[in-house]
Amino acid sequence: MTATSAAATLLALGGVPLVQAGDDLATIMIAACEANGETLRDGDILVLAQKIVSKAEGRAVALATVTPSPEAIDLGAQCHKDPRLTQLILSEAETVMRVRPGVIIVRHRLGLVLANAGIDQSNIEQDGDGIALLLPVDPDGSAAALRQSIRDRTGVDVAVVIIDSLGRAWRKGTCGIAIGVAGMGGLLDLRGVSDLHGRQLQTSELGLADEVAAAASLIMGQAGEGRPVVLMRGIDRGPTDGRATDLIREPALDLFP
Amino acid sequence: MTATSAAATLLALGGVPLVQAGDDLATIMIAACEANGETLRDGDILVLAQKIVSKAEGRAVALATVTPSPEAIDLGAQCHKDPRLTQLILSEAETVMRVRPGVIIVRHRLGLVLANAGIDQSNIEQDGDGIALLLPVDPDGSAAALRQSIRDRTGVDVAVVIIDSLGRAWRKGTCGIAIGVAGMGGLLDLRGVSDLHGRQLQTSELGLADEVAAAASLIMGQAGEGRPVVLMRGIDRGPTDGRATDLIREPALDLFP
Repeated sequence: MTATSAAATLLALGGVPLVQAGDDLATIMIAACEANGETLRDGDILVLAQKIVSKAEGRAVALATVTPSPEAIDLGAQCHKDPRLTQLILSEAETVMRVRPGVIIVRHRLGLVLANAGIDQSNIEQDGDGIALLLPVDPDGSAAALRQSIRDRTGVDVAVVIIDSLGRAWRKGTCGIAIGVAGMGGLLDLRGVSDLHGRQLQTSELGLADEVAAAASLIMGQAGEGRPVVLMRGIDRGPTDGRATDLIREPALDLFP
Repeated sequence: MTATSAAATLLALGGVPLVQAGDDLATIMIAACEANGETLRDGDILVLAQKIVSKAEGRAVALATVTPSPEAIDLGAQCHKDPRLTQLILSEAETVMRVRPGVIIVRHRLGLVLANAGIDQSNIEQDGDGIALLLPVDPDGSAAALRQSIRDRTGVDVAVVIIDSLGRAWRKGTCGIAIGVAGMGGLLDLRGVSDLHGRQLQTSELGLADEVAAAASLIMGQAGEGRPVVLMRGIDRGPTDGRATDLIREPALDLFP
């Protein structure tokens, strides 16, 4: 068997402005593509860092406005964190899974298992007392709305993936994962697909949107690069109706609670 | 801040022949690049599916040659697997972590947490009684040897990453991860790096080689596509002395044993 080649390109857009609460991301995305000499095409995947979606949606919280509960104060003392931050973590969490100095691992209300509920204090303008950035309220909804808005304005069928960086069990280093998906598969179902020798594959599902997220994270840069948007071209997007929540294993089926 | 853009290309090479035990992978890689009209360049990353490395290294085992121990017979009955396969899984495992119908999750002797010890029965020519393919004995060593061999023949500084598809705690779908690395960073250390606003990053380490693995997996195809090699260009490779074992969290420090 001599398969044909397959090629994909990843372009981290330069010149994306700092996003403010209330900004329209579709306008920013279209302008950023133009500024980079690119025109969106059917089949493209537009990958956005969670931070800019959260900022546009006004999910920044000034710590000065947070009153911690007695539980948050206890937890803050236990893990050496600002109790107002632990209050925000608890408010975003469905269950607290592990507590260690500096880190609280929770199952987030979105189903994600996240250190510190995915609350971020980097790449945010800080006032004197600190600002925390929460995940979007409904990242799948945010992705769907952005995809539709781009379609309305340009007529182009673009998939949208919103990503975050996640720590993992058993492995060191964070990896990009999908927290919001629209217009492509979250999972790719491989059941019934045959291998090179006509044998049924053992792997039943591929974490398609998570692999897209990891690939985009690779060229976004984590630090001061300011490249929160990646235009991905040449990737097979799979089913068009996927969501990031497809990637979440039900707690009852998980072997590592 | 208006960062400049960054671009990367992923090319899954077409026409890579079926690899046999004893084949020289450097010869195959160089020929495959030529057949795809590509010349290797300093800074490239060559990503190989674990299967072809294992095959070249003769890691295929005919089940007919395996005699299961009483423990393997018990375990096979418990999880409905061929006891000769469970014998191979036990032989490759350091610890058995979870047993469920159809799946044995182990900490592999390489430190990886893997379903069925990463033993694969797809994309392998089967004889009448079945063949199982084990992971390479030392994938970091395999990557280093291949990198050196390519350098000796072409003079080009190519990083090599050997990848496998991994199931994950809490998330559905497999994702590509690095099991062998040479010539680039396994992890990228971000400690001391500042964000857009001059604030220290909270994330301390990026799983660089795992993101490379996921990106490559995205265009390899899991089924009958027969594209087990990806040439990646335009990625910042980080430190040149990384290994895949850098990505393994010591069991004593893991919160989900």
